[in-house]
Amino acid sequence: MNIKTKDIDYSLYLVAGSDICGYDKFLDYIEQAILGGVTVVQLREKQANGRELYETAVKVRELTERYNIPLIINDRVDIALAVGADGVHLGQSDLPCHIARKILGNDKIIGLSARNIERAIEADRSGADYLGVGAMFPTSTKTDAKVVTPSVIKEIKNKIKIPVVAIGGINLDNIDKLNGCGIDGAAVVSAIMGSEFPRKSAKELIEKFRML
Amino acid sequence: MNIKTKDIDYSLYLVAGSDICGYDKFLDYIEQAILGGVTVVQLREKQANGRELYETAVKVRELTERYNIPLIINDRVDIALAVGADGVHLGQSDLPCHIARKILGNDKIIGLSARNIERAIEADRSGADYLGVGAMFPTSTKTDAKVVTPSVIKEIKNKIKIPVVAIGGINLDNIDKLNGCGIDGAAVVSAIMGSEFPRKSAKELIEKFRML
Repeated sequence: MNIKTKDIDYSLYLVAGSDICGYDKFLDYIEQAILGGVTVVQLREKQANGRELYETAVKVRELTERYNIPLIINDRVDIALAVGADGVHLGQSDLPCHIARKILGNDKIIGLSARNIERAIEADRSGADYLGVGAMFPTSTKTDAKVVTPSVIKEIKNKIKIPVVAIGGINLDNIDKLNGCGIDGAAVVSAIMGSEFPRKSAKELIEKFRML
Repeated sequence: MNIKTKDIDYSLYLVAGSDICGYDKFLDYIEQAILGGVTVVQLREKQANGRELYETAVKVRELTERYNIPLIINDRVDIALAVGADGVHLGQSDLPCHIARKILGNDKIIGLSARNIERAIEADRSGADYLGVGAMFPTSTKTDAKVVTPSVIKEIKNKIKIPVVAIGGINLDNIDKLNGCGIDGAAVVSAIMGSEFPRKSAKELIEKFRML
């Protein structure tokens, strides 16, 4: 996918790691999720070494390309370059945004994480293309994450112009609570990767998101 | 340092990680080692996250630049690009050489590891600029490493044209055993990073290497 305009639909943003569903089902889960309505895929394999991550990223890239879905790589700028991904998502323990930008150029997407207004403004100023804000709800995949209230999200949306994707513990039971926040997307991990029916879950999540 | 010709003196190749001497002394150890005679520095911080590795690499880069010593980054192609290092060293669990080459271009050095002739020939063909061969002796830093005999090194030197750096367990007591192998350099970890007097150890190692 060649996203020249960076005009991405962040509505249902899948953060995909193989740890929940197992590596054997991983690609199938991502494909089912795309068929269900996921609009962006982020590959987040925290335990893989560089070679493993590269080989997985090649496969996920083939898949996302087939469905014309943007692929974001977590952390590793070199893996994003290696597989021709659409961008990276960088946390506080990754390369600084301005350095990643120098390496990736202006055509690639750089997403940053923020959990408060100060950090969101800083991320916006540093040249990020979108912001992941959370955790919205207590979550099992990031046990140390602090919860962000919907009012903080609303304030962030008022202060910055780049798209804001809510993340952290979002599932079918609580996505309605994001109503009125003005978010550009909802990112999910377990709600799809831990679902028995990832396609169905994705379909229901995107339907609920569209009604927010 | 701008190594246009890639004409590098690999004689005493320091593989530098902060785990042995501790982070507080890390930069001082590298500087002392350079003053003692180290000709190349590889930064290998296996436990650091991307941000920590980047910040350390910036400091090590400043240091190696001041002394006009080439800097190689272990594993992470993006960190090498981020700090303008001279190249990377890639193991079997890192990005494949041809992919790293696409990202780095032809001006950067790519070193690969090999422990037998087949792998050495393969590495040579894949476009590596130098080869790290080992482990030469039993080593405490890589407990799973198999020992390579001097005759294997000699055969590798006969079969390939790129520089060969011997690595693994090399110290002041055993470096003489590499006599006659025809190696282009000796890589050390503990012999310098675990020394009480890194400058003195580097000086003695390079003197012994020059006499091989």
